[in-house]
Amino acid sequence: MSASPIKKPEIMSRGARDLQLTDEGDLKHFLSIEGLSRDKLVDILDTADSFGGLGDQAARKVPLLRGKTVANLFFENSTRTRTTFELAAKRLSADVLNINVSVSSASKGETLLDTLRNLQAMQCDMFVVRHSASGAAHFIASHVEQHISVINAGDGQHSHPTQAMLDMFAIRRKKGDFNNLKIVIVGDIIHSRVARSQIHALNILGAGEIVAVGPKTLLPDTVRDLGVQIEHNFDKALKGADVIMGLRLQKERMRSALLSTEDEYYRSYGLNENRLRIAKPDAIVMHPGPTNRGVEIAASVADGPQSIILEQVTGGIAVRMAIMSIAMGNVEKSLAQSRA
Amino acid sequence: MSASPIKKPEIMSRGARDLQLTDEGDLKHFLSIEGLSRDKLVDILDTADSFGGLGDQAARKVPLLRGKTVANLFFENSTRTRTTFELAAKRLSADVLNINVSVSSASKGETLLDTLRNLQAMQCDMFVVRHSASGAAHFIASHVEQHISVINAGDGQHSHPTQAMLDMFAIRRKKGDFNNLKIVIVGDIIHSRVARSQIHALNILGAGEIVAVGPKTLLPDTVRDLGVQIEHNFDKALKGADVIMGLRLQKERMRSALLSTEDEYYRSYGLNENRLRIAKPDAIVMHPGPTNRGVEIAASVADGPQSIILEQVTGGIAVRMAIMSIAMGNVEKSLAQSRA
Amino acid sequence: MSASPIKKPEIMSRGARDLQLTDEGDLKHFLSIEGLSRDKLVDILDTADSFGGLGDQAARKVPLLRGKTVANLFFENSTRTRTTFELAAKRLSADVLNINVSVSSASKGETLLDTLRNLQAMQCDMFVVRHSASGAAHFIASHVEQHISVINAGDGQHSHPTQAMLDMFAIRRKKGDFNNLKIVIVGDIIHSRVARSQIHALNILGAGEIVAVGPKTLLPDTVRDLGVQIEHNFDKALKGADVIMGLRLQKERMRSALLSTEDEYYRSYGLNENRLRIAKPDAIVMHPGPTNRGVEIAASVADGPQSIILEQVTGGIAVRMAIMSIAMGNVEKSLAQSRA
Repeated sequence: MSASPIKKPEIMSRGARDLQLTDEGDLKHFLSIEGLSRDKLVDILDTADSFGGLGDQAARKVPLLRGKTVANLFFENSTRTRTTFELAAKRLSADVLNINVSVSSASKGETLLDTLRNLQAMQCDMFVVRHSASGAAHFIASHVEQHISVINAGDGQHSHPTQAMLDMFAIRRKKGDFNNLKIVIVGDIIHSRVARSQIHALNILGAGEIVAVGPKTLLPDTVRDLGVQIEHNFDKALKGADVIMGLRLQKERMRSALLSTEDEYYRSYGLNENRLRIAKPDAIVMHPGPTNRGVEIAASVADGPQSIILEQVTGGIAVRMAIMSIAMGNVEKSLAQSRA
Repeated sequence: MSASPIKKPEIMSRGARDLQLTDEGDLKHFLSIEGLSRDKLVDILDTADSFGGLGDQAARKVPLLRGKTVANLFFENSTRTRTTFELAAKRLSADVLNINVSVSSASKGETLLDTLRNLQAMQCDMFVVRHSASGAAHFIASHVEQHISVINAGDGQHSHPTQAMLDMFAIRRKKGDFNNLKIVIVGDIIHSRVARSQIHALNILGAGEIVAVGPKTLLPDTVRDLGVQIEHNFDKALKGADVIMGLRLQKERMRSALLSTEDEYYRSYGLNENRLRIAKPDAIVMHPGPTNRGVEIAASVADGPQSIILEQVTGGIAVRMAIMSIAMGNVEKSLAQSRA
Repeated sequence: MSASPIKKPEIMSRGARDLQLTDEGDLKHFLSIEGLSRDKLVDILDTADSFGGLGDQAARKVPLLRGKTVANLFFENSTRTRTTFELAAKRLSADVLNINVSVSSASKGETLLDTLRNLQAMQCDMFVVRHSASGAAHFIASHVEQHISVINAGDGQHSHPTQAMLDMFAIRRKKGDFNNLKIVIVGDIIHSRVARSQIHALNILGAGEIVAVGPKTLLPDTVRDLGVQIEHNFDKALKGADVIMGLRLQKERMRSALLSTEDEYYRSYGLNENRLRIAKPDAIVMHPGPTNRGVEIAASVADGPQSIILEQVTGGIAVRMAIMSIAMGNVEKSLAQSRA
């Protein structure tokens, strides 16, 4: 479970492709965007749309996962992400177990695999995994039994594929087709699992133009290999942009040698109202949250009319419901076929 | 969110009156007793009665909040109160999220409003709020969207309206009408959100006589403005009492200059068996719990035949079910009207 | 709540027999194996079998405890055991409250009985109790009202009866009848609530031969009174064994004077592949988990073909569902009779 090397994304994508799909090529685990076809991503977005009559109260609770048990295995604390998965699972009528793995097992010296084996012996059906180590969800998916589906809820600096899919969902709802869009991703690209997953998803869905923006310390030339243009001047990148995707700046970076000060960062890469005017008038502003107001984004922009930050959150429930129900359905289909 | 000044309760009641009700005058948030009419309180008690065939197993789970999500936002730890709300919500068939807000968001520097906006974007339907700052629930209710109902589960020294309603429920069950009752409230009146809410409720429901009892340090003359008589001699107050309501004495008070010693307090204001004999023979003894036995009440009285402390707890589930279902119903009615 | 004296198991069994059963002799609380008849244990195993079509997805969720509230009262942390009870309760369609009692009440000086009285006033139906003090579940069962059923999820060094029943369930599934079996229990017998409960269950179910194995410091002669043979030579005991039940070695023991070193313990009492060959070729290896690999068992044996450690976990859900639904059913029958 060492950190995934950003220079060779194909190493992990190869394994991921095999691991995520059943023999029939259906999505079984959801570990990373890499290795998934355009059709698979569109299927997730379409299914999320079908759950998305979200204001319609009656439609909210569906019995697709009734009788199933979803275990939230959070090795890294994230109330926000855990809550969205818990809500998605409950709205699919699943039973949910919240397990803070680090606390529960470390004290008795139990190994990760022992914990997993016990949970699958208790007939959990799905593991939602959050871990600080890149590749953790893949590692777990490669060790579970046939009846378990694994969903990656963020692993180290590698991947955060459900976040990327809810971003795609929000973009498609606002902008329709991806083909003609200029999308600007700004911030700490190299350390961001969100950015990596977004870039993969945008490329697979055929986005017109993807520009990554940030200081050289956070955006080395190697990032170009992911399939994006690189730009260190934010104003220049914003020209003609349809979508501006901010990233959360980890305060730890600023204390390290990689960045000078918050003020200086904000001056060069903060999205304020003046800068936003450079983009197209109907450009949308996105952010995975929680935002650092006054560091990567001005409060007036985060809360302004072009921001769809909270719509991202709302869509996130529908997208997670879609991913969970698709994966679980395919696990069951696959089990039925292996029995037949 | 500064402490509400006890001298001017009308300041908050004005705002609360507007905030709690829909345009049609229906209860939408439940923030404080102040500003609610007698009819509203009676409606809550009647509805709680309808859930109160509590020994009847079959009747316990009702589908009134099926498909709804209730978020318990406890900024202040209280397992006991959180548990009653969790049970009430589950018996209404709601999905429940327990969110310890202080822990989850502080670590990432997220603001309170950001947390709330995210939870409402996740389409939670109800926030049950417990906070150490007076006015916190009002603050939250004034910032949420139309589809959210806010229930105050205790805010600072201001208000604890669900506790007051379950007290009213217990009194009505035992004594019927409030008109002819003499009710004695004893203890740390000035610091108690429970006492403030009880006094408002008793006045609105037309209680015959309300007497507040305590030492001068905990019961200044200004308390009279809430609509009670003031008495510093407990024995004198107990003559002819139908209902004796104890309050929990915060140990912190005793360490401060406000009180001398536990022993001395118990001698003057502890409810023991001898004192209880001064009241009417069928007087009932109440306490919001947990009790400090030997400080504000003798163990033999707390566990004795006139104590209805545990019946208060039982009724508390029915009363909270009533408040939650009434408020949610009115939110839905109001949403339907604003769409039509 | 002092530690139960291992020399006089009958002291507690007398009380337990009365306390566990209704006036009609039906199981009401599940506190210890002692005092239960063969019929009662077989009934639990048969009922667990009926839930045990566990691979069959449709059968997993049953409405036997719909509308009931199960409170997990864990005074001692055990994520693993709590999770199995939570899953069992949810698959019976109960509402589940997880209450970490030590945290919630200690801070307000509330007593254990006060906590219990409040939970039963909230109309919880079942308390699942885990406590570090022997006799805690008995103490609680002797103080609750008629409508509450208490399940012992492990109390001090006294008893862990649901673990013993899932072990019996696993043995019966693999071996059928108990009559002709030679069963070897190895490890820290004297400090193990699991071993005590296993020995009682095996005796009641009529196991052919039960041999307890361990060093003299962990296996004094007095253990013979429980109804087992005593053997200090593991190899000798293994001859002809059908079932080998390991126990978790508490690391604390090794730091104390009772044991020398992990290495030395493993040499004498670790179950490795060579030793396993001494037993019958079809002998099964069991362990309550989590295992200390390389201390009490070799990893190759724990994960080997004769190990049924994970099948024990799976069966544990069905067994707990059986115990909970039987006890709750009898509480209701008894309540109905006392009303009639």
